Amino acid sequence: MPSASFVDRLRAAQTDRDTVVCVGLDPDPARLPSFLRQAYTLPEAVTRFNAAIIASTRAAACAYKLNLAFYEALGRAGWDVLEQTLAHIPASHLTIADGKRADIGNSARFYARAVFDDLGFDACTVAPYMGRDSVLPFLERPGTAAFVLARTSNPGADDFQSCRCDAEDTPLFVRVAEATAAWSNEAAGTAGLVAGATNAEALATLRTRCPSLPFLIPGVGTQGGDAEAVMRAAATDEGLVLVNSSRSIIFASEANNFAEAAGAAAHALRDRLHVTPAE
Amino acid sequence: MPSASFVDRLRAAQTDRDTVVCVGLDPDPARLPSFLRQAYTLPEAVTRFNAAIIASTRAAACAYKLNLAFYEALGRAGWDVLEQTLAHIPASHLTIADGKRADIGNSARFYARAVFDDLGFDACTVAPYMGRDSVLPFLERPGTAAFVLARTSNPGADDFQSCRCDAEDTPLFVRVAEATAAWSNEAAGTAGLVAGATNAEALATLRTRCPSLPFLIPGVGTQGGDAEAVMRAAATDEGLVLVNSSRSIIFASEANNFAEAAGAAAHALRDRLHVTPAE
Repeated sequence: MPSASFVDRLRAAQTDRDTVVCVGLDPDPARLPSFLRQAYTLPEAVTRFNAAIIASTRAAACAYKLNLAFYEALGRAGWDVLEQTLAHIPASHLTIADGKRADIGNSARFYARAVFDDLGFDACTVAPYMGRDSVLPFLERPGTAAFVLARTSNPGADDFQSCRCDAEDTPLFVRVAEATAAWSNEAAGTAGLVAGATNAEALATLRTRCPSLPFLIPGVGTQGGDAEAVMRAAATDEGLVLVNSSRSIIFASEANNFAEAAGAAAHALRDRLHVTPAE
Repeated sequence: MPSASFVDRLRAAQTDRDTVVCVGLDPDPARLPSFLRQAYTLPEAVTRFNAAIIASTRAAACAYKLNLAFYEALGRAGWDVLEQTLAHIPASHLTIADGKRADIGNSARFYARAVFDDLGFDACTVAPYMGRDSVLPFLERPGTAAFVLARTSNPGADDFQSCRCDAEDTPLFVRVAEATAAWSNEAAGTAGLVAGATNAEALATLRTRCPSLPFLIPGVGTQGGDAEAVMRAAATDEGLVLVNSSRSIIFASEANNFAEAAGAAAHALRDRLHVTPAE
C-alpha cells in the first residue's frame, strides 16, 4: 500500500511530465490494426496493442484508464490481458479501473478487492445510485481513489443527473458530488468525481462546490468536449484534474503507424491542456 | 436466441414448479463450509458449493441470480467458475447476471456481449444513473431481460433514490421506473425493475406506475424484507415478481449439511410467498 495520498501521487505524476492527460485503453477489437489481428490471437493482439500505445504515449500522460467492459468481453483471457497491460504501465503512472461498479456493501467489498488487492489498480470509478454503503467499500485503502460518477459525458447524462432535488432545487449531480465530498472526509482513501467534458457549466459548478476533490474528466475527443474550456472550468491549484481521452488517442490511426499516431495525439492533447487555470 | 419473450419464459418457469423464488449464488469464500475449503482449491470449492446448492434448491426455485462481484474476486478462475456454475443450472430455470453495469453506449455494448452472448445469461441487472444510452445496449436481445435498479434494498437506497424530482415532486426511483417502462417499449428485449423488499410502500408505488414490468425483488432474508408484504404489494396477474434470497438460503447452514439446509430454506421461502395477490 503506498504511503502517500492519492492526491499527492497524482500531483507528482502530473508534475514529472507536466501533463494532466489520462489515456483510455479501451481496445475495441473491431478497431485494432488489421496486421495485429492477423498475426495474433485476439487477447495477444490486444495486449500488444496496449503495450505499443503505452510506450508511445507515456511521455505525454500521467495516468491510464482501462474500461473494464472491453476486457470482460474477452472472456477468461480478459483477466490476463488486464494483468499484462498493467505490467506494461510504468510505476510513475497511475492506473484507473473504469468499471462503474457499486452494490450493497457485502458485495461491493468483493469488487473493491478485485480492483485494488488482486489487480493492484490505483483508482477506480464507482456508480452512486445505491448510496453511501455501496460506495464506502471502495474508499478503504490509503493511497487509492474512487471516482464517483457525478455528471457523465454521454447523451443520457441529463435523463436523471440533472433532476432538481427537493426543496433546495439542487441538481442530482451536485447532490451526489456533495455527498461524495462528505464520504471522502470519513474514509482512508480519496474520493473524486467523474465529471464529463461535454458540459463545462456543470464542471464549473462542481468545482465551486467541491474545491479540493480530484476530477476525472472524460469526453474530450470523440465525444466532443472542449479541452481548453474544461481546464478553465475545473483546474485549480487545489483541485486537480485528470483529462481522459480514449478513442481519439488510441485509434488516431488504425494503420501500421497506430502507435506513432497515438503518441502524436496524446502530445497534442497535452499541449492543448496547457492553459492557465481560471483566477 | 430463445423465441419466447422473457416474460413468457419467466411465467413458464414459475408455473412449472409453482414458485417465484430466485436463489442468489453469492459465494463468499469466508462462509463456505470448511470441509470444502480444505479439500479443494478455492475456485473448485466454489463450483462444488454452487452445484450442491443448485441441486438442493432447484425444485423450489424458478431462477438463479449470480452476483458478479463474487466471481470477479476469484480472478481469472472466476470466469471458469461462472461458466461451470451456469452449466449446473437446468435449462428450465432462468439465469440472471447481477452486475449492475452501465456505461456510455460504446462501452455498454461490450458488457452486454459478455453477459448475454459469451456467458449466455437470460437476464442482467443495470444501473440507471447514466441514462438512456447506457441502458439500451442491454435491451437488444429478444427473449432476454435487463432489470434496472429502481429502489434498492440497502441502507443507502434513500441517499439519492428518494430525491423528489422537479416540479412534479416525483421520487427519483419512480422517474427511473417510468423511463425504464418507456425504454422497454422501444426495445427487442424486456426491461424490468429491481425493487427492494425492504420498502413495501415503494414496491406498491412502482407496481401502480408500472403494472406490467417484471420485478426482481432482493432483500428478503438477511436484509430483513417481509416476504408476505412483498407479494401483497407487487405481485399481480400481469406483473410478475422474482423474489431473490441469497445469504439466508445458501448459508442457512455452514456445516456439512449446507445443501440440505439451503434446500429447506428455499422451500420454506417458496411456501411463505404463496399468498393471494392483492385485489
